[in-house]
Amino acid sequence: MKKFLNDPDTLLREALGGMALAHADLLAVQFEPTFVRRAVRPAGRKVALLSGGGSGHEPLHAGFVGTGMLDAACPGQVFTSPTPDQMLAAAAAVDTGAGVLFIVKNYAGDSMNFQIASELLELENATVLVNDDVAVENSTHTTGRRGVAGTVIVEKMVGAAAEQGASLAECKAVGDRVNKSTASMGVAFTSCTVPAAGRATFDIGDDEMEVGVGIHGEPGRRRAKIRRADLIVDDLLTAIVRDLSPGAGSEVLLHVNGFGGTPLMELYLLYHSAERQLRSMGLKPVRSLVGNYTTALEMAGASLTVTVLDDQMKALWDAPVHTAALRW
Amino acid sequence: MKKFLNDPDTLLREALGGMALAHADLLAVQFEPTFVRRAVRPAGRKVALLSGGGSGHEPLHAGFVGTGMLDAACPGQVFTSPTPDQMLAAAAAVDTGAGVLFIVKNYAGDSMNFQIASELLELENATVLVNDDVAVENSTHTTGRRGVAGTVIVEKMVGAAAEQGASLAECKAVGDRVNKSTASMGVAFTSCTVPAAGRATFDIGDDEMEVGVGIHGEPGRRRAKIRRADLIVDDLLTAIVRDLSPGAGSEVLLHVNGFGGTPLMELYLLYHSAERQLRSMGLKPVRSLVGNYTTALEMAGASLTVTVLDDQMKALWDAPVHTAALRW
Repeated sequence: MKKFLNDPDTLLREALGGMALAHADLLAVQFEPTFVRRAVRPAGRKVALLSGGGSGHEPLHAGFVGTGMLDAACPGQVFTSPTPDQMLAAAAAVDTGAGVLFIVKNYAGDSMNFQIASELLELENATVLVNDDVAVENSTHTTGRRGVAGTVIVEKMVGAAAEQGASLAECKAVGDRVNKSTASMGVAFTSCTVPAAGRATFDIGDDEMEVGVGIHGEPGRRRAKIRRADLIVDDLLTAIVRDLSPGAGSEVLLHVNGFGGTPLMELYLLYHSAERQLRSMGLKPVRSLVGNYTTALEMAGASLTVTVLDDQMKALWDAPVHTAALRW
Repeated sequence: MKKFLNDPDTLLREALGGMALAHADLLAVQFEPTFVRRAVRPAGRKVALLSGGGSGHEPLHAGFVGTGMLDAACPGQVFTSPTPDQMLAAAAAVDTGAGVLFIVKNYAGDSMNFQIASELLELENATVLVNDDVAVENSTHTTGRRGVAGTVIVEKMVGAAAEQGASLAECKAVGDRVNKSTASMGVAFTSCTVPAAGRATFDIGDDEMEVGVGIHGEPGRRRAKIRRADLIVDDLLTAIVRDLSPGAGSEVLLHVNGFGGTPLMELYLLYHSAERQLRSMGLKPVRSLVGNYTTALEMAGASLTVTVLDDQMKALWDAPVHTAALRW
């Protein structure tokens, strides 16, 4: 296993410690129970946004804690759900009296643990469940569709709404609407290695890719031979656009997300291809995000995410954001 | 070869095309000769900063074109120097009458071609040569030390000076001073594959690392067994700090740079380790940069860079920057 590591048992603590040291103006981390929160509490009352999930997808979620996005993130061990005690402690730390909203990727463990926390906190109708992955209906760790790179879009837009003073019900409605307007699908060329396991999550041939792969390396739709990038993009966009059924001429956000092991050059090549293909389908890419935002450790591969925009969503996307991984 | 690719011959054009589409507000790209420039020319007269080098190190350099940093970047093919015609065309496009300064990583090809362009433009004393890599004195593609991740620090600080109206001589002096105050060294766990070559640049055992590796996969000081992250950091920092000989209590910037294939979690773990080790050496890390900024395609590994700061350098680092890859 080729990793920068002292001990798999202390990896999470050391990585979060490094994050807090490198971004002391933005973030603070607390341990046992473990969560990351903004270094500075918002001045007035605002809906507190809380997300979390297994580690190994960095910068998701802790990299999106800050003004205009999340108030706190609860990281589990690598590819392992965080536990309800983390969510309770984080919620207590960031609640300003205007309510707490959970943004949860749809995986069995995350969904169950956030549900337990939600019941203990007596929250009602205060979870946005993200399930943007159109690759498969049910999956290794999921009933229903998985939540993948579209989570960043949901967190950004709900984050802007909360910062602007939207109520809990309004934030929840924005989140559900963005999730419904967002679809993703990806392919992997290589596996990744969970440090505590010490070996590759899956085997894959030298000329093969996993089409519709999940962000933990879980199977997608099929194993296929690697093809030209334009054909891979065509395959992904066809599935995404079929799911979204956008009206002719719709404005969209196009997000090319790297899984961690693919060079930025290739991600921009994918953007080039996908942008032109969306235009040839009669859609208008008017907002973009290209980079490694929802990763699967060092897995080589990438996903495409499309969000069908309206004016409100465009304004929420454009609103200022100040986090470790996203800033404008 | 597992890459998102249509044809190795069109990769650069497609990647730059994608970059320009994704960041149309920031960047414009021109082909034949090829260069990337700011989408909007600065309003007044300012020193124009121009960099460039082989592609495959993204976001370096095109990702740093924008307000507060570069005016233009000349990308060569993957790991291949750009040519003087690119530099001449870029210089003509961005010169506002206050002079043009080249920021060049010290490799034989880059250095020669920028020198030719410099002579054709009749520029004198208008190149900052970056040679921050303390691993080896001469190397595969170099006479003298290589320029690596410290280039980002030089480009950021000189960029701020130019934006604030510094003269050509002042910008050059800042660049030389930052370069002299900056030292880097890295290790690689895996090779990378140049698309046009189609095979790994070097072979390396399953438990081995290349200590002092270059950003093209060129050899460093030695091949060694992979060790605990804390020991790797100790090894790199010892070489870096010996080179810099900073005064006791010096304030430093600590940059952890991923080579492309190493997860962000591991980069933050390295930051955690390096921050504490610098403190134990009596130094004060007061500025940070963690992420994939000077990459070697998909190579797994990372480098550490330390810049010994003074008040001017701190202010230049903190000044606003608005580029695709660095923004605050």
